[in-house]
Amino acid sequence: MSEEFVFTVAAQDGAARSGEIRMPRGVIRTPAFMPVGTAATVKAMYPDQVKALGADVVLGNVYHLMLRPGAERIARLGGLHAFMNWPYPILTDSGGFQVMSLAGLRKLDEDGVTFQSHVDGSMHRLTPERAIEIQGLLGSDIQMQLDECVKLPNTDEAVEKAMRLSLRWAERCRVAFGEQPGKAMFGIVQGGAVERLRVESARALVDLDLKGYAIGGLAVGEPQDVMLAMIEAVEPHLPATKPRYLMGVGTPDDIVEAVRRGVDMFDCVMPTRAGRHGMAFTRHGRLNLKNAKHAEDTRPLDKGSKCEAANAYSRAYLHHLVRSNEILAMMLLTWNNLAYYQELMAGLRKAIREKRLEDFVAETKEGWEKGATDEGAEPVAEGGVDA
Amino acid sequence: MSEEFVFTVAAQDGAARSGEIRMPRGVIRTPAFMPVGTAATVKAMYPDQVKALGADVVLGNVYHLMLRPGAERIARLGGLHAFMNWPYPILTDSGGFQVMSLAGLRKLDEDGVTFQSHVDGSMHRLTPERAIEIQGLLGSDIQMQLDECVKLPNTDEAVEKAMRLSLRWAERCRVAFGEQPGKAMFGIVQGGAVERLRVESARALVDLDLKGYAIGGLAVGEPQDVMLAMIEAVEPHLPATKPRYLMGVGTPDDIVEAVRRGVDMFDCVMPTRAGRHGMAFTRHGRLNLKNAKHAEDTRPLDKGSKCEAANAYSRAYLHHLVRSNEILAMMLLTWNNLAYYQELMAGLRKAIREKRLEDFVAETKEGWEKGATDEGAEPVAEGGVDA
Repeated sequence: MSEEFVFTVAAQDGAARSGEIRMPRGVIRTPAFMPVGTAATVKAMYPDQVKALGADVVLGNVYHLMLRPGAERIARLGGLHAFMNWPYPILTDSGGFQVMSLAGLRKLDEDGVTFQSHVDGSMHRLTPERAIEIQGLLGSDIQMQLDECVKLPNTDEAVEKAMRLSLRWAERCRVAFGEQPGKAMFGIVQGGAVERLRVESARALVDLDLKGYAIGGLAVGEPQDVMLAMIEAVEPHLPATKPRYLMGVGTPDDIVEAVRRGVDMFDCVMPTRAGRHGMAFTRHGRLNLKNAKHAEDTRPLDKGSKCEAANAYSRAYLHHLVRSNEILAMMLLTWNNLAYYQELMAGLRKAIREKRLEDFVAETKEGWEKGATDEGAEPVAEGGVDA
Repeated sequence: MSEEFVFTVAAQDGAARSGEIRMPRGVIRTPAFMPVGTAATVKAMYPDQVKALGADVVLGNVYHLMLRPGAERIARLGGLHAFMNWPYPILTDSGGFQVMSLAGLRKLDEDGVTFQSHVDGSMHRLTPERAIEIQGLLGSDIQMQLDECVKLPNTDEAVEKAMRLSLRWAERCRVAFGEQPGKAMFGIVQGGAVERLRVESARALVDLDLKGYAIGGLAVGEPQDVMLAMIEAVEPHLPATKPRYLMGVGTPDDIVEAVRRGVDMFDCVMPTRAGRHGMAFTRHGRLNLKNAKHAEDTRPLDKGSKCEAANAYSRAYLHHLVRSNEILAMMLLTWNNLAYYQELMAGLRKAIREKRLEDFVAETKEGWEKGATDEGAEPVAEGGVDA
């Protein structure tokens, strides 16, 4: 623990790094996967289970929490950590992405965005200052700037306009955040799939000397090689001494490839959402438990896993639970999936420290291929909101 | 544990008894509350949580399990205990009640009942022999006879006809069950709200010398005093040396009153179903967490409870989870409710052994009254099926 927000890189292997972020509420071991706790809960998980799997930090969503139960209410109740029984670090997304993807009517202007709640139709407003104020009310440890996210594909002009607005908002968020020892405000690199815009965005944000830098607006449907090209374009322009966070990513393969390219932090709804839809991630690839072929398979998901959800229940039973829409199906598959994601991150951290990342990546991919007997549809990530 | 099915009464206080049922898979401390695991899962609970709360036995449903995933399939997979990761005793309901309450088209004849699955519309048949065969395939420790349940209110004639058919089916089930060391088949006293029919049913079943006797067809909407009158009418005719099981009951108050009248076993969907609908049972009465008055209440449900769901999460947080339809709401409230039911049963057992049941009952009811500040709608039990 530390009174300040301190990031240290302990080891490098190629562009990949492993280190830790120390702050008053705990230590985040990087590369880190942050389970998504949209509405103040990592869906279908008790908080102590999440921690026990090795998650050092969870993500909360300004958009959802400001609508229900409200930021001021959470503040009166002692903040988000107390509210959701998670005393460890929390990162909050600022709401920019969700306003675009979830809200009803919305109107953007230079000063902010006015939008309609998808919960009850009421009207709300977010400005850079209000986004930071809300994150302060929540007590968030790592706060994100408000940004404008455009849908891809889009014209370069529209992408550039949103990127520049996001930069101006980053400056205003920085001022609003001020100095908060032990906490951090991250900027978000935008610029769609346009390399020169991404580079310009990164450089301008670095000039603001923020505590960390996110890469936003990716994993929204573009091919993986486009996403990786953007990371490669941006990475040389980000300071080696600051954490890099790839927002809303991704599949285990996306994460492995981004870690190889120097990314330190990830969040994604995939393990939790997939778990609620009958999908299991394992060392041996993905399984779609809805599939009839599992109906009499007495094998567990992965008898070598330390997670009870993976080693103590048969695939036949999980198949039955999924087919019967039982809550326990969602509980067990979410648990299994988060366990696998955290196991993967621990493996990546160890491999980087042992300078054997490329071997680890090869072995990991071989494992997925070898056991990948299942071609179930892959759920799509939706910008850090697990709904 | 015991190789045989052995019931012993260790203490009595008035008509109330406390004892235990020993059998190969474990010991059931009585009076016992059996959580309902309709489709091979106690909804929203991990099996080890259910056990840790003090449940010695759970209930499964022939009707649901024969339709999905099928009794023969469960047998091929090693039986219900292995399938659902519950190595302790299991009692299975025979399906009579569910055929009446859940199935589509159904046709009853002397030999059995043909009905349409509510899952996929397929046609199925249950006879007394098939009901026992299915329970054998499941590996059930305590098996129930097939019975005919009529809706109440009804004509005495219809009630009597169903009671007599149920008696003939009890004889056939007894023959089909044969001798199974370590296991038991229970008969079910029927007769609606007609005392003479209840007494006749009980006497005829006692002549069959079964291992235990259930009282069925109650808690279907009749007033509590009618239910208690039927228990009082039947109890003197049931052998003191055999366990008595009141099916589908009930509220904490119903259970307390039935224990006072000599009942040893209970099952009910109330704690689990109510937990999925925002209701909490506590020592201080019921709370409807949907209610806006909990929105900023930082108190836990019951800080004196040993259950984490009751002592570690604020009512404000539970309110938020319920309002947001979060799975964690169902997980925490179900956990709390089953914890309270098991705590109540442990209290009843201890009080009977200390011969202070009446004091315990008075204190318990005083606790409910004192804290009962909440008049939320009460979920209705539906015959041992938690759906």
